[in-house]
Amino acid sequence: MALELAEAHLRGLLSQLGLDAEYVRGEGDTLWWRTPSGDVPVVDYVGGYGSLVLGHNHPALVERARELLDQRVPVHAQFSYHPYANDLAAALNRVLWREFGVEEPYSAIFANTGAEGIEVALKHAEMDRVGRVARLRAEIEGHLASADPELAARAREHNEGRFDLPPVFLTLEGSFHGKLAGSVQLTHNEGYRVPFRGLAAQARFVAPTEVAKAVEAERVTVLDVVDGELVERDLPVVAAFFVEPVQGEGGIRVLEAEVAAEIRAAADAAGFPVVVDEVQSGVGRTGAFYAASHIGLLGDYIVLAKALGGGLAKSSVLLVRQSRYLPDFELLHSSTFAKDAFSCHLGLRVVDLLEAEDGAAYRRAAERGEALAAALRSVRDEFPTVVADVRGKGLMLGLEFHDQTGGTTAVAEFARQGLLGYVLAGYLLREHRIRVFPTASATHTLRFEPSIHITDEQIAQLVTGLRAACTALRDHDDPAILPA
Amino acid sequence: MALELAEAHLRGLLSQLGLDAEYVRGEGDTLWWRTPSGDVPVVDYVGGYGSLVLGHNHPALVERARELLDQRVPVHAQFSYHPYANDLAAALNRVLWREFGVEEPYSAIFANTGAEGIEVALKHAEMDRVGRVARLRAEIEGHLASADPELAARAREHNEGRFDLPPVFLTLEGSFHGKLAGSVQLTHNEGYRVPFRGLAAQARFVAPTEVAKAVEAERVTVLDVVDGELVERDLPVVAAFFVEPVQGEGGIRVLEAEVAAEIRAAADAAGFPVVVDEVQSGVGRTGAFYAASHIGLLGDYIVLAKALGGGLAKSSVLLVRQSRYLPDFELLHSSTFAKDAFSCHLGLRVVDLLEAEDGAAYRRAAERGEALAAALRSVRDEFPTVVADVRGKGLMLGLEFHDQTGGTTAVAEFARQGLLGYVLAGYLLREHRIRVFPTASATHTLRFEPSIHITDEQIAQLVTGLRAACTALRDHDDPAILPA
Repeated sequence: MALELAEAHLRGLLSQLGLDAEYVRGEGDTLWWRTPSGDVPVVDYVGGYGSLVLGHNHPALVERARELLDQRVPVHAQFSYHPYANDLAAALNRVLWREFGVEEPYSAIFANTGAEGIEVALKHAEMDRVGRVARLRAEIEGHLASADPELAARAREHNEGRFDLPPVFLTLEGSFHGKLAGSVQLTHNEGYRVPFRGLAAQARFVAPTEVAKAVEAERVTVLDVVDGELVERDLPVVAAFFVEPVQGEGGIRVLEAEVAAEIRAAADAAGFPVVVDEVQSGVGRTGAFYAASHIGLLGDYIVLAKALGGGLAKSSVLLVRQSRYLPDFELLHSSTFAKDAFSCHLGLRVVDLLEAEDGAAYRRAAERGEALAAALRSVRDEFPTVVADVRGKGLMLGLEFHDQTGGTTAVAEFARQGLLGYVLAGYLLREHRIRVFPTASATHTLRFEPSIHITDEQIAQLVTGLRAACTALRDHDDPAILPA
Repeated sequence: MALELAEAHLRGLLSQLGLDAEYVRGEGDTLWWRTPSGDVPVVDYVGGYGSLVLGHNHPALVERARELLDQRVPVHAQFSYHPYANDLAAALNRVLWREFGVEEPYSAIFANTGAEGIEVALKHAEMDRVGRVARLRAEIEGHLASADPELAARAREHNEGRFDLPPVFLTLEGSFHGKLAGSVQLTHNEGYRVPFRGLAAQARFVAPTEVAKAVEAERVTVLDVVDGELVERDLPVVAAFFVEPVQGEGGIRVLEAEVAAEIRAAADAAGFPVVVDEVQSGVGRTGAFYAASHIGLLGDYIVLAKALGGGLAKSSVLLVRQSRYLPDFELLHSSTFAKDAFSCHLGLRVVDLLEAEDGAAYRRAAERGEALAAALRSVRDEFPTVVADVRGKGLMLGLEFHDQTGGTTAVAEFARQGLLGYVLAGYLLREHRIRVFPTASATHTLRFEPSIHITDEQIAQLVTGLRAACTALRDHDDPAILPA
């Protein structure tokens, strides 16, 4: 066997679970698995972790990509005029204005991946915060210069070092916002985050029931002298609240409207921006372009990625509402690969396809999502001791298993290692030609994120596989599930 | 005019300098500029900031991209077997073994952009460091448990808090390693870095003459008890030394072999990895695939990006030598977009094109680079009071102007604002159909990074433009340079 140099350890694990399939072709919701006896079609419910709202290699997008290649569009033309980037920003704005019923424009900063988009949001939010701290500091120093010297001294002593406090980012428990050096610190999963905590500013992970309390707990004040009196002023320590409208890796958990409203209110009161992470939930999957529109959560920042590239290009965008946008940020931040003609033109075509026929794609996402959810609920109802919950929105669905870590079976041992979802994924692939994966931070929840073209037959194939898996789990029938 | 939502402020600045050209087509070293009187060819010396070693839309790469689209390769198939990623890793290894005369394999972790590759390196290096700290701590605690209690107490008191010190990253003055939250802290330019310093671990910027001294300055020791005596042990505080073989944004500065050897020796002595950032210099441009091979600097980590995508795809890779590679990293880090069939297959074709005919492309890069360097030197020789220096390696060249900030001309005023290079870029584009930009952190140095297909005629066109620009600078002839 040739030397394995591209994540050999991961491949070993995938191989052990029967998941090291080689896929050679993708169309719609089908991936073709290369096997010794030929290429076998597999129904793909992973869907590029949310990237394939229109499926693998959608014909209109492949055609558009070919056109762009044929036209020899310049992929690399940084620091020139990119009208296509502006067109895409405008298209994203038009949808946003309609879905949220607002008129304020959002400015667009382009990046290349969801994690990059989050990092750009981190940077913009911190630049905003540092500016607010500097203005407050200048104002207070102005007051202290002409204040009673004793009061000024007391204020200065209290304030010592406070203006240089590091930023605090807030996000909900179960959050996933990426895995780059900064963004991974906003990702709740300790396994992904803690080894790297020395690299970047820390987040506080907030229980959904304790939003206001958590914001209050971060409150830091400095002293000013106004009208001859010492007064407390709030120091902007919290840089932003990051939130997913539907938590993806946290187990497909839909944000409740009440929690969203609390976050919005707390941010407005304290003056920090809400960053809505639509990397996985956005671009049509939930039955609206912006999943946050279902619960009326208008972000100050919105991050899109994954499906924005149409399953072919890599792109992301940070949208920032005009009233909070810092134009100078454009001179400090840049990316060689971002804002390129190829990904912008494909993104425009994605928006066009979703918006066509008065939003038929969103209606289809909702209808197909309901059909898939009904199918999953039927499995839950048939196996109430095995399946704990079915939840989600549109075509972003999760099926959570009851705890399977008890007992002495091999499956229970896998479950104790956090591998239940992967064992089931191996089984469903091997025996039922179904590709599915657990969510990254809640591995007893399987995720289902197919395209809007998923068929009843494909859903029936999934149900057959899940029923067999649940039967085996119920009966502790290890041999039925585990590889030979 | 329609609402500008994609970096309107930047466009305003570009417009003011005559740089807001719209390019509609790219082939080889030519970009077509859309003007009211038709599409005008422009010779592109920016070359995607190092991404276009084979030029815009190289026919063989466009053809390969079309094939991949036609074959409906799965762009999204994360957590399956990606033989093409392994093939690319193997190809990069074969070139590395040949150029450095070594045999040790390097494992590959894929990412999507140069900055992402650097952030992955940050994470891997920190995971390595944290592991070394933990092992040292466990060993010392084992010793202290059975040591003389008084000595143990003294050691514990000295060690208090030290094991939790944040990581330190070292890099040279003038460095540029990206602009994401973590990587921007390794980028020397204060304008890019300082507003975001609260976001991530800090780097120390080291003068090339003071490498050993800088490493010594970071030395932190903890106390152990060995054979009944207190002994100092070195604590791994430095996580890595990041270095560019040719600094790109710092002004096209070739790393001296002596400095490289000092970095290598200091890292070996202290036990931290050297991260060679080949994002801009790598993939053939300097006359070798790895620019560091010219000076015999073998990195423990090597980051490639930009040209690895062939000017069409977005990809990067972190190579880590096997003896320092942490297989478990594969289970902690991942990226939805990385390691995809499209970018891996294109990367393979890039390597094939460069390696063909026994490395004809590298020889061509060296030969064309020498022709371009000779042309730039001829300009320097003709205008010694205007041009300070010509430097670089292969097709990564810089031309540095003497200080132009003195005097009362409008050009001097632009120079004082750090815009000299941009003003000249506007002039050369408008009057000579030449696209060129200054390096990002040394804006009085113009960079030249064309493809290996740059012709003598295109070089002559550049010389004509530069001679006219230098004449105007020498004669303080503002109207000749500035837009009407």
